[in-house]
Amino acid sequence: MKIKAIQDYYPEELSYCYGCGGLNERGHQIKSFWHGDETVSHFTPKEYHIAIPGYVYGGLIASLIDCHGTGTAALASYRTEGREPGTKPPFRFVTASLQVDYLKPTPLGIELELRGKVVELKGRKVISEITVSANGIITARGKVIAVQMPENLIKEK
Amino acid sequence: MKIKAIQDYYPEELSYCYGCGGLNERGHQIKSFWHGDETVSHFTPKEYHIAIPGYVYGGLIASLIDCHGTGTAALASYRTEGREPGTKPPFRFVTASLQVDYLKPTPLGIELELRGKVVELKGRKVISEITVSANGIITARGKVIAVQMPENLIKEK
Repeated sequence: MKIKAIQDYYPEELSYCYGCGGLNERGHQIKSFWHGDETVSHFTPKEYHIAIPGYVYGGLIASLIDCHGTGTAALASYRTEGREPGTKPPFRFVTASLQVDYLKPTPLGIELELRGKVVELKGRKVISEITVSANGIITARGKVIAVQMPENLIKEK
Repeated sequence: MKIKAIQDYYPEELSYCYGCGGLNERGHQIKSFWHGDETVSHFTPKEYHIAIPGYVYGGLIASLIDCHGTGTAALASYRTEGREPGTKPPFRFVTASLQVDYLKPTPLGIELELRGKVVELKGRKVISEITVSANGIITARGKVIAVQMPENLIKEK
C-alpha cells in the first residue's frame, strides 16, 4: 500500500493550491510525509524553473518551503491530537509569514530534498523550519509561520 | 516609444529566470520600472495560481516580491551610479534572503501592484521593501536582500 502524503488528505475544494494541490494539473503537487520526527518532501524542478544558468529559481524554492511548511503544520497537528490524517475535522493551514535564506545556488536538474522540523505548535499556529538540500548539501533554509484556516472556509467531503 | 523594464536590459543569458526572464516562455516575465522614488510592477495571476478558492497562491506572491526586489536593486544601482540601464557593466542581482508577511488573503482574478523602496544600498548589497496590493489594499509585505552577481557569471552581450 502506498503511503499517502498529507496533501492527499486535504479536503477536495482545498486541493487546488498551485504549490501542493493534488488536483491542480498546472501546479507543483508537492507531497509531504513524516520521516521520524522530521517531515520530508522530494521535488525535481523542471528545466524552465531556472534562475541563472544551472541553478534553480529562488521563487520556486520559496514555494516548496511554503507548501512543505503548511503540510508540516498539518502533519504535526494530527500527531499532537493523536489522530490519523483523514479523520475529522481536517487540518488545513495557510501561511502567515515566510522567511527564506539562500545559502548557496541550488543546482538545477536533480531531485531536491526538503526537511521540516516543528519548532512551535501553539493553538492555531505552527512554526516550522525547513531545509532544502541538493546532493546532500543544504542550499536554502526557511521558516514558515502557518495558521489554521477558519473552519467556515473548509467544507468537509 | 515604450519604456523598457529593467529586466529588458538583463544580459541575454541571464534573461531566462522563471520569475522575470523575458526569454523564459514558461515563466512569469515580471517587469519592474521606476515610478518616482519607488519601483513598480504589475502582474495578473492566472486562474491556476490559486491557493484556496478565490485567493492567490502565496508562493507566487513570494516569487513576485523576489524578482521585483532584484529588479529594484538593479534599478537603484544604475541610478546611484548616474548611469542608464543598458550602459556597461550590467547590474544583475540574485536573492540572498527573502521575507514575506501575508497580511490578508490576496484576491485572485485582478491585477496586482507591487511597489518597492530601497532601504539600504551598500557595496554589492541592496535591501528593498516591497508591498503587494490588490484593489489598492496592501495584502502582503516583503523584504528582499539582493546581492550583485559575481562578474565572472555575467557574459556581456
